[in-house]
Amino acid sequence: MSDQCSRLRRSRTKITVLCLLITVIVLHGTFNRVNPDSAAEENRNHHAGAEAPRKRVDTRRLLEEAQNDSAQADNNNDKSYAEFDIAKILVDEEGGNEKPDPNKPYSLGPKISDWDQQRSEWLTNNPNFPNFIGPNKPRVLLVTGSSPKPCENPVGDHYLLKSIKNKIDYCRLHGIEIFYNMALLDAEMAGFWAKLPLIRKLLLSHPEIEFLWWMDSDAMFTDMAYELPWERYKDSNLVMHGWNEMVYNDKNWIGLNTGSFLLRNCQWSLDLLDAWAPMGPKGKIREEAGKILTRELKGRPVFEADDQSAMVYLLVKEREKWGEKVYLENAYYLHGYWGILVDRYEEMIENYHPGLGDHRWPLVTHFVGCKPCGKFGDYSVERCLKQMDRAFNFGDNQILQMYGFTHKSLASRRVKRVRNETGNPLEVQDKLGLLHPSFKAVKISDSS
Amino acid sequence: MSDQCSRLRRSRTKITVLCLLITVIVLHGTFNRVNPDSAAEENRNHHAGAEAPRKRVDTRRLLEEAQNDSAQADNNNDKSYAEFDIAKILVDEEGGNEKPDPNKPYSLGPKISDWDQQRSEWLTNNPNFPNFIGPNKPRVLLVTGSSPKPCENPVGDHYLLKSIKNKIDYCRLHGIEIFYNMALLDAEMAGFWAKLPLIRKLLLSHPEIEFLWWMDSDAMFTDMAYELPWERYKDSNLVMHGWNEMVYNDKNWIGLNTGSFLLRNCQWSLDLLDAWAPMGPKGKIREEAGKILTRELKGRPVFEADDQSAMVYLLVKEREKWGEKVYLENAYYLHGYWGILVDRYEEMIENYHPGLGDHRWPLVTHFVGCKPCGKFGDYSVERCLKQMDRAFNFGDNQILQMYGFTHKSLASRRVKRVRNETGNPLEVQDKLGLLHPSFKAVKISDSS
Repeated sequence: MSDQCSRLRRSRTKITVLCLLITVIVLHGTFNRVNPDSAAEENRNHHAGAEAPRKRVDTRRLLEEAQNDSAQADNNNDKSYAEFDIAKILVDEEGGNEKPDPNKPYSLGPKISDWDQQRSEWLTNNPNFPNFIGPNKPRVLLVTGSSPKPCENPVGDHYLLKSIKNKIDYCRLHGIEIFYNMALLDAEMAGFWAKLPLIRKLLLSHPEIEFLWWMDSDAMFTDMAYELPWERYKDSNLVMHGWNEMVYNDKNWIGLNTGSFLLRNCQWSLDLLDAWAPMGPKGKIREEAGKILTRELKGRPVFEADDQSAMVYLLVKEREKWGEKVYLENAYYLHGYWGILVDRYEEMIENYHPGLGDHRWPLVTHFVGCKPCGKFGDYSVERCLKQMDRAFNFGDNQILQMYGFTHKSLASRRVKRVRNETGNPLEVQDKLGLLHPSFKAVKISDSS
Repeated sequence: MSDQCSRLRRSRTKITVLCLLITVIVLHGTFNRVNPDSAAEENRNHHAGAEAPRKRVDTRRLLEEAQNDSAQADNNNDKSYAEFDIAKILVDEEGGNEKPDPNKPYSLGPKISDWDQQRSEWLTNNPNFPNFIGPNKPRVLLVTGSSPKPCENPVGDHYLLKSIKNKIDYCRLHGIEIFYNMALLDAEMAGFWAKLPLIRKLLLSHPEIEFLWWMDSDAMFTDMAYELPWERYKDSNLVMHGWNEMVYNDKNWIGLNTGSFLLRNCQWSLDLLDAWAPMGPKGKIREEAGKILTRELKGRPVFEADDQSAMVYLLVKEREKWGEKVYLENAYYLHGYWGILVDRYEEMIENYHPGLGDHRWPLVTHFVGCKPCGKFGDYSVERCLKQMDRAFNFGDNQILQMYGFTHKSLASRRVKRVRNETGNPLEVQDKLGLLHPSFKAVKISDSS
């Protein structure tokens, strides 16, 4: 009996150990499945400065090298961002030996130096594809997108769907075309960097585009009546929401936002993309660049390099080269951080009206940090989704009112009628003037 | 001890009964949550004729009344669909007494009889919103939509997202605007009938629209290069995929398809919508109308009235009134049933090319019966989703090739490069001519 008991005890112990082992393996696999890109994105926009998962790399030597490089660059009075020497970053962690890959530094594509001329000739030869579609009205392509995979969070795709409907509505009213991307064109530039190869490709393929408007999938239009002040930007090539002081004086990593920006189709922009890209390639380069950005920029948490921080760094380091053509806009919300807007919608409805675009009625409400598609955001899922519904309805009401309807409340999917049907539909009051807005009217010449 | 055992046994019995009771209640609630509309939609397009859930109503008297009405109508040589007397359908099931509601027969809105004139005047007064945007190029609004609720099947929203991206791509190339609807404008006309109030509202609000193109959310563009033959329809007001013989001779319920159709913005169309609507109001009217349709049409399963069957019935009953302006198109796939197309994509790629629009390269692949958003479709979920991915990629490849990429296979989300970057991007071969297609070019007059 006692032999039996002993055997039972031993096999029970073996089973217990086996189960523990399996549990450890599964947990390990689960935690390591967190995509380093999404971990980085989570933290990119986290205002409270929480830290992203740290990665253990022997970096002392790398930082010293990088510091030496920038010190050298400083000494040469050459504050070129390009002095950031990628090759020296690529070291063998184990051996400590340099393994530069000088044959293949990252490139967005073959260098083009005469794009303004190429484009100008094309436009002359193609008068049916003009870059201005009306007086003071440039041809604009709004570019956005999301992963080709279903969201890890099942409800995430529903919010992507509402978000694109929202963009379709604004763009239809404002005569803007949309490109929705679901393809990863360059595996090295995955995550938030994926927009760079895409933007370059679209600019070069569509010379008729005057401005490319990049917009994140978690940003929504909340002022359907606001037309961008194109005239204001006639001497600018890059327009982002931000503040000069926060960028150039404070070097604050959220001094500007790359979730919604305009980029003119011209040589300058191609050069900018080339200058912006080097911190992007994933792996060691992006990791090491992230450390530099955290060190150099105010308030930046520890995580791999992101495009927004890299833009701040680029502008700070090379202000003379780029600054003159960069417009940091804060007169209206080209990007509006959702946290300070969404609780005020009722107050806005009470006191203001669409068409203002600013704090009174924001053009864009941007749900940075929410990540409805993933499983790990910076804010509570419940708050994010509830507020995204409200923002969607806030914007959607401006569309529905054209047709005599409105949402029953900002929280409700359901709509109610607010204007009766009539036998004279063309005499209805179009209060916001959105049914046939002036900024959409184009003069079509007589067809031949 | 035995007292204790008895007590234990009794309480165990009580617990068992309680659990059974809860189980029954939960199951009952689960089964009754199946939306009757979706049950009807499931069956609408089921080609094998499976039966929808039957509803028990004492219908003998109702059918006799309806038959008498139509016999009377026949006797009067008046085959008016409007003779279908809704009022007589509204009976009290229990008492068998008629309870017509003559004060409120269903109406899409106040009768308008001079829409052609109203519209013509408006167009004259608004030359900046012409109804033709190029030679032989009418202004078209593509209308589609989905429920404001997240899909019951989590992956459903992902397919809605891919579907709208697909439509955005086609419409951008072809100069067509999109309206994505997520609002139920009229609770009585829920489900597939919801498109009628929406279509009427959009036509009346946008006189500049020449054609409204309704397209189901489960239909995808698979020929990005095919431009509709607008000239062919210059004397038509309603264009649907279908066959004259199947509709007028066979009265086959799938003799035409209302999942993708064109409707001209004119008085005739308003009248058609008014004539089409009566079978739509949900509840008894829709149920009883469904029985009539099943009886009258060939091959139709038993389920409530759907808009497609009602259209067949309307055209058959009132051919002289409507037939002349209805074009049943089958020279290309304005709607293409997915079942006979999706297994041939590789063969199409091998032998043909985009721009044909027909069986060789279908314009539209329509996933009737798949219902990725709901939980109950007519086909296996696995087959549907796999084929929807293939159809999406088949169409998406035509977009990607403009930029030098293609999907690794029709089953793969990933893309690969098929054309190197170049320093002369404007000289690349645009094989399909989609980068700057002629059907998109518009002549803009000099801005003043």
